[in-house]
Amino acid sequence: MARIEERLIALGLTLPAALKPPAGRLPFAFVRLVGARAFISGHAPLNPDGSLARPLGKVGREVSADEAYDAARLTGLAILGSLSRALGDLDRILAWSRVFGMVNAAPGFNTMPSVINGFSDLILDVFGPDVGAHARSAVGMAELPFDIPVEIEGEVELAA
Amino acid sequence: MARIEERLIALGLTLPAALKPPAGRLPFAFVRLVGARAFISGHAPLNPDGSLARPLGKVGREVSADEAYDAARLTGLAILGSLSRALGDLDRILAWSRVFGMVNAAPGFNTMPSVINGFSDLILDVFGPDVGAHARSAVGMAELPFDIPVEIEGEVELAA
Amino acid sequence: MARIEERLIALGLTLPAALKPPAGRLPFAFVRLVGARAFISGHAPLNPDGSLARPLGKVGREVSADEAYDAARLTGLAILGSLSRALGDLDRILAWSRVFGMVNAAPGFNTMPSVINGFSDLILDVFGPDVGAHARSAVGMAELPFDIPVEIEGEVELAA
Repeated sequence: MARIEERLIALGLTLPAALKPPAGRLPFAFVRLVGARAFISGHAPLNPDGSLARPLGKVGREVSADEAYDAARLTGLAILGSLSRALGDLDRILAWSRVFGMVNAAPGFNTMPSVINGFSDLILDVFGPDVGAHARSAVGMAELPFDIPVEIEGEVELAA
Repeated sequence: MARIEERLIALGLTLPAALKPPAGRLPFAFVRLVGARAFISGHAPLNPDGSLARPLGKVGREVSADEAYDAARLTGLAILGSLSRALGDLDRILAWSRVFGMVNAAPGFNTMPSVINGFSDLILDVFGPDVGAHARSAVGMAELPFDIPVEIEGEVELAA
Repeated sequence: MARIEERLIALGLTLPAALKPPAGRLPFAFVRLVGARAFISGHAPLNPDGSLARPLGKVGREVSADEAYDAARLTGLAILGSLSRALGDLDRILAWSRVFGMVNAAPGFNTMPSVINGFSDLILDVFGPDVGAHARSAVGMAELPFDIPVEIEGEVELAA
């Protein structure tokens, strides 16, 4: 069995189905493969069936910092689900390159890094410190689609 | 004649002149070529002469969702104009890689994906589903320069 | 002596120590090397000892436009410090590719480009117009970590 697949099982993690868009068309690829690079679209925290995970709303108002950490982790699992469907095998990922972590921030909420740690901790746990290391920003957005508390996009490098 | 150029004519599309900055210096490249990649700076919706297209303001307040869709489409034409001037020939584009769509969102406006569809629909229409496919985020910003309703940046892959 | 190192000395510039995080864990790399690319995490304006430079707060409210220009310049020096530690030699940089400039914008503050010019002017001054040219966006965020007025991330291309 593939190494990352085994690791996910060892950690008791399951990847959710693809996003069921709550409204409207989404005419883009969740993962875009270009040569040895996979570009990852902005992803949301999902339930196992692909519906949007609750709670929705602004972090620091409807959503607590701890709930937002969990949302960032769920967003990571959604991204791994999309990568798995696009790549066939998550072992093809040689390096996490870039992570852009966006928090739906209530006015005055400014501990976005602790929220996006929910994503970074997952990736480091699954891929280890060499493959899993990544550049990152963690910033506060005015609004996110469908009132999701966290959205994350990024890029990974693939085996040729 | 070049294939994409023909397609633009068939669709009745003309590309605007380069942005006439309404104020201040802009000491950066609208398109930065690095090897086989073209990095696209944040672009605004433009009139044919390169002035900022109206309406300006926040989407969901001064600017309606439909007007913002049109603004995203105009932003796409502005990007194609910059790429055309930087590359000489839009047929050099092998793949759209990454699109980051930013909406100047009024508080509570959260259907950014439907706005940025104005860009994605244009790119898919002009380049087709293989070349035109792209990873995308569509998110709400607190403020955008000069009160433009939409700003889009991204990356494309070029023929060597 | 290395060319860029000499240029920094000629300009009287010193690079700050790595960020001393004011709170929490930051489980990511300030610079992530992947092949010939260096991905630069979101950086803050720093004092020489790596503490956050003052003033903090929103640009257009607690922080003036001129102070924000200086903050963007300090953010550039912090990025050069991180690149220097990651690369050993800043002469390895062949091209600045992409710069994403984020301003902690007070409501109604929309001259983000003039703020991020503090970064672009520094990079062009240090690296010159060929290597230093870059694609750029300059946009207004709802919140930034620790109330910093400016955060900048990006990517540079390296000698093989």
